[in-house]
Amino acid sequence: MEEGLRLYNTLTRMKELFQPLQSPFVGMYVCGPTVYGDAHLGHARPAVTFDLIFRYLRYLGYRVRYIRNITDVGHMEEEGLGEGEDKIAKKARLEQLEPMEIAQYYSNRYHAHMTQLNVLNPSIEPQASGHIIEQIALIEKIIDAGFGYVSEGSVYFDVESYSRQHHYGKLSGRKVEDLLSNTRDLEGQSEKRNPFDFALWKKARPGHITKWPSPWSVGFPGWHLECSAMSAKYLGDHFDIHGGGMDLLFPHHESEIAQSQAANGQDPCKYWIHNNLITINGQKMGKSLNNFITLDELFSGKHELLEKSFSPMTIRFFILQAHYRGQLDFSNDALKAAEKGLKRLMDGWKSLEKITPSDASTVQVKPLQEQCLEAMNDDFNSPVLIATLFDGVRMINSLVDKKETITPEDLTLLRSTFQAFIFDLLGLVDEAPETGSGRIEQLMETIIQIRKHARERKDFATSDFIRDELARINIQIRDTKDGAEWAVTG
Amino acid sequence: MEEGLRLYNTLTRMKELFQPLQSPFVGMYVCGPTVYGDAHLGHARPAVTFDLIFRYLRYLGYRVRYIRNITDVGHMEEEGLGEGEDKIAKKARLEQLEPMEIAQYYSNRYHAHMTQLNVLNPSIEPQASGHIIEQIALIEKIIDAGFGYVSEGSVYFDVESYSRQHHYGKLSGRKVEDLLSNTRDLEGQSEKRNPFDFALWKKARPGHITKWPSPWSVGFPGWHLECSAMSAKYLGDHFDIHGGGMDLLFPHHESEIAQSQAANGQDPCKYWIHNNLITINGQKMGKSLNNFITLDELFSGKHELLEKSFSPMTIRFFILQAHYRGQLDFSNDALKAAEKGLKRLMDGWKSLEKITPSDASTVQVKPLQEQCLEAMNDDFNSPVLIATLFDGVRMINSLVDKKETITPEDLTLLRSTFQAFIFDLLGLVDEAPETGSGRIEQLMETIIQIRKHARERKDFATSDFIRDELARINIQIRDTKDGAEWAVTG
Repeated sequence: MEEGLRLYNTLTRMKELFQPLQSPFVGMYVCGPTVYGDAHLGHARPAVTFDLIFRYLRYLGYRVRYIRNITDVGHMEEEGLGEGEDKIAKKARLEQLEPMEIAQYYSNRYHAHMTQLNVLNPSIEPQASGHIIEQIALIEKIIDAGFGYVSEGSVYFDVESYSRQHHYGKLSGRKVEDLLSNTRDLEGQSEKRNPFDFALWKKARPGHITKWPSPWSVGFPGWHLECSAMSAKYLGDHFDIHGGGMDLLFPHHESEIAQSQAANGQDPCKYWIHNNLITINGQKMGKSLNNFITLDELFSGKHELLEKSFSPMTIRFFILQAHYRGQLDFSNDALKAAEKGLKRLMDGWKSLEKITPSDASTVQVKPLQEQCLEAMNDDFNSPVLIATLFDGVRMINSLVDKKETITPEDLTLLRSTFQAFIFDLLGLVDEAPETGSGRIEQLMETIIQIRKHARERKDFATSDFIRDELARINIQIRDTKDGAEWAVTG
Repeated sequence: MEEGLRLYNTLTRMKELFQPLQSPFVGMYVCGPTVYGDAHLGHARPAVTFDLIFRYLRYLGYRVRYIRNITDVGHMEEEGLGEGEDKIAKKARLEQLEPMEIAQYYSNRYHAHMTQLNVLNPSIEPQASGHIIEQIALIEKIIDAGFGYVSEGSVYFDVESYSRQHHYGKLSGRKVEDLLSNTRDLEGQSEKRNPFDFALWKKARPGHITKWPSPWSVGFPGWHLECSAMSAKYLGDHFDIHGGGMDLLFPHHESEIAQSQAANGQDPCKYWIHNNLITINGQKMGKSLNNFITLDELFSGKHELLEKSFSPMTIRFFILQAHYRGQLDFSNDALKAAEKGLKRLMDGWKSLEKITPSDASTVQVKPLQEQCLEAMNDDFNSPVLIATLFDGVRMINSLVDKKETITPEDLTLLRSTFQAFIFDLLGLVDEAPETGSGRIEQLMETIIQIRKHARERKDFATSDFIRDELARINIQIRDTKDGAEWAVTG
């Protein structure tokens, strides 16, 4: 067990030494997608960030129970206030499908995209719609504690009365007074005592499909509630880490704290971790700006802002090249640079095989490994880790060029360090050999060279033999002005 | 819309013309896996069978909502009576995990295996644990109708009182009198009025983790209940097709009918479809017989009964080569035969490219296409379909050999027929080009032959040239007693 991990806690605004509540067990809850559309860059960043954290905690020997939820109900278009139309129900209405068909379709696509990004599956992936009973029980606790009230069949969280005993705003650093003056008028809020009260339960309007019976009305839970209910169910009332994108800090996570304090008298977790957001060519990403790039579009290159396609590993590497708390700006140039960087790293890994060990080392491998660990222990600093690995690539190149020497023991350590950090922790995959097509091109080029060599020497027996052997495996060679070409015939 | 589909209805024991309740919409519910272990052959057969049916119904133009559930709670070890220990909770206890972690882990693996088998995702994949409210509401309806009774906090279905008004046993052809005399004594059944009454709700024993509040006790639903509740939720109280393996016919599906009749006064569906079971070398499959082969073991070849590995498409083709209502016996020889058959079919498909059309056809393509459709319309008779496609392969070979001729129009029809039936309907995939590794092996073998040929002729310039060219792309050739071997060096 590594004792040195320090992580930035959004709640305290400090880097703190990581001390799990019940080591070696670690409970981590991360807000997952609302499944009403394809995953985009804004989904990829938290997924890859918390995948890195999950992988590193496991690497340190912790037994991590990692929960990432699926929001398939109750996420309203006006997120802050729990008003507007349910995002999935709206999509279903537009496409004339059962809302659960929409949720299933986009859940499946989300999973496929996460697999492409080599994001590990969380331990449990609970669905909001599957935990209505737990959410109703939580509302009852909040009402009993005096922090929830019923109005017209809906239930709201009473932020003002909560604020008299607790600090609503402590995570995001907001003040209740400011909230009051900034809140817009919206339909439905006349049911509320105060405009910034948020819904715990909403009575279903006529025609609303996704609904359940409750003590207050046939309706559905408020969005903030599901995470409080499901994290408590699978990790307990107080667990180690809660994560998500910075866009969820307020009001979602702030409200989760309020719900847990109201129901259980304690914060839900010890550490809050938030990844920063993504910009596209310096601009905020948004559907109205037409710079909303889905993962599918990135992988296929089919978006007017993209000059070419970028592989899943290029996207993953690009995200990891920035620290998760820094902003990340997507641009074609930045992605092309990431593509090159990833290739350099993988080439370095492959070059390890070309090194012949010597009796003595002129390179320092152990300090390199320690720097890698230090980077990860410093709030999961993946860009510093990657820079250190590039130092390692330079070391490897010098060793291949025989400008430096290395002992067999040091070579083994260098290889295991690269293996651990590139593949196990950064979660990168060498994409090249997967298709095999690059290798096939190389081999055909080799055969064509052999044939050319034979023909130059007027060795037509060999060149005919090559033609016949290739024909046996359905490959045809044809001579053109630009040299020989080949094609598969069957 | 094709009007000619006839399917065998287990309920009427007849082939019936398929007439959807609300054409073009079709609702189909199929019992999915209990996720407490890896998917095995017994899971592959229903998955592939109903995938074929799903694909064909869509091909005919129906808009199919296909529901396949995930059983993650309430499936007891003594399935028939709803007693014993919850299968997932037991596994969790053995592995010291939260039961939902087990369910998630095996759900993920199930999905990965289904993807390998090219089984399409169902429209909705509801989890039993996510539909407790709906199950409680259904129990209340059954109690209100006089067919359920509470005993010691549990609720049971009163088979005897149900039998006075309805026919319990009409699906499986059993008689209530026989059931009574065949039922064993088991712990817990003293709570019941009659030993063959089945649990609708079970009060949780001390220490039981997976439980919810209900009007009767903190507990969990009986296994048969989830399918009744979830099919009604997503397809309505009366839908088109209910499917599953023949092992589920009694008591699971029989009890579903009873629950629906008790609660809603009607059968849940119009057509019942059951796939037959799988035997291994003529024996029933069972963990105690050590002939329990998981899909993972089949794909990797790692099981003592397997002589080699078999690809996912070989398994799929093997399943489809038998009619779904016939028994299917797995053996190495049968699988090797399927492997060959699949290759022959795929080779035929590829040979289509080699055909040059003529002015006239000496072959009959339209009748071939019609026979394919007739086979599928005859209760999804995939073995007859495959035999017809093999007739097509023979036709293709004769055309390639120029023993027969074909017009461009007929060639287009032949190609589209093969495309539709092999890929879209049988759901087969040509596995060969996916990895590219087979091609690489072929090309390296070709190069080694060229080198051997050169060395036999003492043309060492060529053999050295080949060695150097390969070294440039990091391939090393080494001569051994058994001939030349090659390896990638970096």
